Amino acid sequence: MKSVKASAPGNIFFAGEHAVVYGKPAIIAAVERRTYCTASKRQDDKIIIESREFGKAFAFLKNTAVKQRTGKQELFVLFDLIESLAKKHEIKKGLKLKIESEVPVESGLSSSTAVLSASLCSLDGLLELGIKKEEYFEYLYPMQVKIHGGKASGSEIISSALGGYNRIQKIEKEGKTMLDWRNLGQQSLSVVIGNTKVRAPTALAVGMHIPSLMKRFPGMVENEFEKIAAICNEIEEALKKHDEALLGALLNKNQAILSKLGLSHPKLDDCINEALKAGALGAKLSGGGWGGVMFALVRKGDEQKVAKAIESTGAETIITKIGCNGAKLCE
Amino acid sequence: MKSVKASAPGNIFFAGEHAVVYGKPAIIAAVERRTYCTASKRQDDKIIIESREFGKAFAFLKNTAVKQRTGKQELFVLFDLIESLAKKHEIKKGLKLKIESEVPVESGLSSSTAVLSASLCSLDGLLELGIKKEEYFEYLYPMQVKIHGGKASGSEIISSALGGYNRIQKIEKEGKTMLDWRNLGQQSLSVVIGNTKVRAPTALAVGMHIPSLMKRFPGMVENEFEKIAAICNEIEEALKKHDEALLGALLNKNQAILSKLGLSHPKLDDCINEALKAGALGAKLSGGGWGGVMFALVRKGDEQKVAKAIESTGAETIITKIGCNGAKLCE
Repeated sequence: MKSVKASAPGNIFFAGEHAVVYGKPAIIAAVERRTYCTASKRQDDKIIIESREFGKAFAFLKNTAVKQRTGKQELFVLFDLIESLAKKHEIKKGLKLKIESEVPVESGLSSSTAVLSASLCSLDGLLELGIKKEEYFEYLYPMQVKIHGGKASGSEIISSALGGYNRIQKIEKEGKTMLDWRNLGQQSLSVVIGNTKVRAPTALAVGMHIPSLMKRFPGMVENEFEKIAAICNEIEEALKKHDEALLGALLNKNQAILSKLGLSHPKLDDCINEALKAGALGAKLSGGGWGGVMFALVRKGDEQKVAKAIESTGAETIITKIGCNGAKLCE
Repeated sequence: MKSVKASAPGNIFFAGEHAVVYGKPAIIAAVERRTYCTASKRQDDKIIIESREFGKAFAFLKNTAVKQRTGKQELFVLFDLIESLAKKHEIKKGLKLKIESEVPVESGLSSSTAVLSASLCSLDGLLELGIKKEEYFEYLYPMQVKIHGGKASGSEIISSALGGYNRIQKIEKEGKTMLDWRNLGQQSLSVVIGNTKVRAPTALAVGMHIPSLMKRFPGMVENEFEKIAAICNEIEEALKKHDEALLGALLNKNQAILSKLGLSHPKLDDCINEALKAGALGAKLSGGGWGGVMFALVRKGDEQKVAKAIESTGAETIITKIGCNGAKLCE
């Protein structure tokens, strides 16, 4: 039985979170913690999904519809993906997906997007559908909306598909809000990601806090978001020059603005301070803030030292690299 | 059919939270948002609980055991309370409890303790059990452990039973950890309580954050907790003198220490700053920190102004008074 294995990276906001909601650019980085998916053909009409992390789910492909779904509900979104592929590409026979992930769930690394991208990549390879990485957004955005609700930006899909660093920006086009992106290429940087274990209530920070600041301090937030946009531009230049020290300084600058806007958290500050004291080039929160994760950019060789410093606060760490490959077939 | 109505107040930490975990004193205040319970006798062996907020629950009293429990599980802890009373006081016949609460659930005002205290007070009145307020702890602590797990301190029971202000402190007695308390009398103070809507992860703050600081900065936290203990002593004196301005200043001092220890939150800081700008005498977080609620002590007449200021941040407010009556029968 033919089978094809593919992988896709996790992702973190490198810079620009929150400002991106208001039309400013942000930079997302692919994280070298990957999700692997092996797709194989079946002779019958069964759809089987086996996830090491979540368990199993079963269904049947009936006239390009995925019916009689049973098993782990968390995996049903993959039935939706298969159904959309079946309709578009006239798939008639059963399939099996086997998924193993190195991206911790609820770690701020968008594990669900990595699962979707790896699955699409393996199915594309197996069924020779000829889907371009640039088309992943179109295929996967409806699935991400199912997982995260209507407010998902889908920017993680771009990162997980294309890899490296991606500059993303919401734009208005013909009266519609769309996501514009530009891939900034690959470049391996060492990071330590720290998980504060404090749940990040992103909807409150975005929906309540920032609007309340905008109302009370007219122009202030907009002004700070302009500065964040400028930082994203400078990061783009620093990436071109491979200037890690400058990148670190720019991350710190972004963090200072997020902190001024009341988007950090004492535990994030604690992790960031310990990382900088231990010699990190820069450190900032990543994502919604008010908890969740931070990351520190470190010189090669400093990973363990910085990880230990972050762990001294009680946080969990992941030592990894960013700016790596996007979704790809395994050799 | 005879029936007896009673009420019990909500409660907030006025000062000393976190330090109290390490054997320092804390001061809890009764809040004039009350829970009402009407208890009535039945001729049969049915136990009926009707809660305006939660719904209904039913059971039968069989040989002082409350059996065949059905309905809203949230109310089953009241069956436990009735069973413990039935065993101790040989209650043989059915009962009905009707509960209405002004204490918002999950608002940081220990709504569940108010329900328990009001229920015990009405049952005591109805069945003429002669239970003293000082004995409420003994009756209700096992119920609070069922609701909150083994880490409940039970200090809210003291406050809800006795009312006013209570100084509480964990002490070691004959090798056991016990709760010592002293009632500081009643005294009506105007407050505005602000709910940040950010869930307070108290277990993480207590179990991870503070221990990590103690390990990294030996003596620092202990030193700050000593200062908080001194503030609690000063608050006791200020209450005696009815010195509201001094009380406000002491609350600010306590908040500054909690903030230094990384226990505040940007949204708490936001609410506190707005309250102080609007003329509050003092303001601090109450409870675990990292979200949850804050309160502002205000001059009579300033309630609306300060509430509006706190609400401008997106938080919800309650204008009320503290230092009021504990559990009592309604006239």
